Amino acid sequence: MSNFLAPDYKSLVPYTPGEQLNYKVIKLNTNESPFPPSPKVKEAINGELIDSLRLYSDPEVKHLRKAIADEFGLEAENVFVGNGSDDVLAFSIMGFCGRGGEMCCPDISYGFYPVYADIFGVNLEEIPLEADLSIDAKKYCNKGKTVVIANPNAPTGLALDPDEIEMIIASNQNNVVIIDEAYMDFCKTSCVALVKKYKNLLVCRTFSKSHSLAGMRVGYGLANKELIDDLNRLKFSFNPYNMNSVAIAAASAAIADNEYYGRNTDKIIEIREKTKERLSEIGFEGTDSKSNFLFEKHKTVPAETLYNELRKRGILVRYFSKPRISDRLRITVGSQSDMDALVSALEEIIKELS
Amino acid sequence: MSNFLAPDYKSLVPYTPGEQLNYKVIKLNTNESPFPPSPKVKEAINGELIDSLRLYSDPEVKHLRKAIADEFGLEAENVFVGNGSDDVLAFSIMGFCGRGGEMCCPDISYGFYPVYADIFGVNLEEIPLEADLSIDAKKYCNKGKTVVIANPNAPTGLALDPDEIEMIIASNQNNVVIIDEAYMDFCKTSCVALVKKYKNLLVCRTFSKSHSLAGMRVGYGLANKELIDDLNRLKFSFNPYNMNSVAIAAASAAIADNEYYGRNTDKIIEIREKTKERLSEIGFEGTDSKSNFLFEKHKTVPAETLYNELRKRGILVRYFSKPRISDRLRITVGSQSDMDALVSALEEIIKELS
Repeated sequence: MSNFLAPDYKSLVPYTPGEQLNYKVIKLNTNESPFPPSPKVKEAINGELIDSLRLYSDPEVKHLRKAIADEFGLEAENVFVGNGSDDVLAFSIMGFCGRGGEMCCPDISYGFYPVYADIFGVNLEEIPLEADLSIDAKKYCNKGKTVVIANPNAPTGLALDPDEIEMIIASNQNNVVIIDEAYMDFCKTSCVALVKKYKNLLVCRTFSKSHSLAGMRVGYGLANKELIDDLNRLKFSFNPYNMNSVAIAAASAAIADNEYYGRNTDKIIEIREKTKERLSEIGFEGTDSKSNFLFEKHKTVPAETLYNELRKRGILVRYFSKPRISDRLRITVGSQSDMDALVSALEEIIKELS
Repeated sequence: MSNFLAPDYKSLVPYTPGEQLNYKVIKLNTNESPFPPSPKVKEAINGELIDSLRLYSDPEVKHLRKAIADEFGLEAENVFVGNGSDDVLAFSIMGFCGRGGEMCCPDISYGFYPVYADIFGVNLEEIPLEADLSIDAKKYCNKGKTVVIANPNAPTGLALDPDEIEMIIASNQNNVVIIDEAYMDFCKTSCVALVKKYKNLLVCRTFSKSHSLAGMRVGYGLANKELIDDLNRLKFSFNPYNMNSVAIAAASAAIADNEYYGRNTDKIIEIREKTKERLSEIGFEGTDSKSNFLFEKHKTVPAETLYNELRKRGILVRYFSKPRISDRLRITVGSQSDMDALVSALEEIIKELS
């Protein structure tokens, strides 16, 4: 740290992304898709587009906002596009909580929420998950502060029902409720339809998971026009050209090929359920994950041991040393062959250690 | 504006980017390059890269940081990469001024500096330019606050000498001095060599101008390791994956082809000088611009009239209604044929109005 960093930021503990190894591994640690982007994305990133990179990208991101809006039966004015959904979450928490403001989220959820609270000087209430790692929707009602909930939640994979989500939104109409639907395509109970009904709802989504574009960095927020205008006010005061032309073209092409992504999503759900069953046969107990990852503990072998042994065998999963979940592994649902390799490796490790 | 936006941000006046028209124009309003990116950029953005977009990009941006460092005889630890140089400037002003902190910059300069001060709650001292629109370096010495200077300055195009820049840095060693060299390739008196000498210097640069990648959004900061660590601390608390994989690959390929960009830059300088002379022959008086734009006033026709008349003829230049510069046009140096069209149109307009 230099002597020049402002006191507000000296104690910041930044977010730790999942490991990226530079040797060949089976990578099941950051919930990426095993499938490549749609062939339409490749068509869109052509020579003409690359030549046009000499010109600035569209700061209004009009084309992509319209494409996303069409997909959800909304208008472009209901869509904010960010450089990944992290960008959308950052502007939202910055703008709707404000420095010295208040927000709440589950104590076990996306690890970035507390980091945003820290960098933007927001007082954070972390509401404990229930003993079974579920969220009790009642605990998020009438909070009088900004509410942030990932649905399905990560790393648990557990989802709230649409009526529970609506109860939270309806009971907090003086504050913004941010529903982070990063994994919703694997669960299929989105609350996006409520955007037309509630002025305080912001739904946050991403192209990184179901749409195979993690490396392209495109996320979006869906909300009523006034909230979107607020986010644009912040964006145009921070980084007006936050989306580059290739990301805009790639995401526009991707959302136009939801048939391709729908098929992939269905395959991932199928592999998820099958893998869950096979893991249960070798002594694992998992949550009822509605995401593209499993959250599993073994009845005898500690999660940290499994994590390290898998790593030695070139299989990367995510382990959190955090209390209450340190007995579990978060395992991305990869391709069928990735899952075959995972289950074989786990069988071998468990046999060796028993 | 919604009822939910925090009071801190209710009076924000966002930055206004240059107009983007969606019909065919000669676009001389946002200082883009008339040349396409290097053919090496096209090679780098291939099918394999696009397939790999299912995976997250490298949050450390290691490959590109090394490539940039090599170009300047620095180490990767001296390089911070941002989603455009706006991203670098935002994190720098946020982190090194701090909320309630102090910064100064010229009163006529990049219009975004005051917006950053506003969004990050920084007290801004705007130091007036001299009557000839130059910067008096002495006025930036011993300031006891963060100093931000664009060199060459925009929209004037005027540059400070390297020894004047060093005097400013040396006299402000308790504060960060940010030298924004967005246009420095057209001036060729960079202060980057001083990064090894001064701990308080941050040089900000971009691929948007000389490197024909405005639409790809890549900027970078060069400084000693401690300042770069601070910027990374903020980045990893705001948007760790701020650079997408295509932007990283494109900029890495671009910086490896500086021969191509060097030739383009020399051509633009040549066209700049020639155009300046032709404009002077039809009654313009310009600054001694060391950038890829001219800053010109006409002896009889008001700048706003010229701006509107050019616009009617499909030629877009930038006009600022701000006091002291409302008599001038900022005109990007485009291709030779763009400049021929510009001079012909101006001749016609001036003739009609005289």
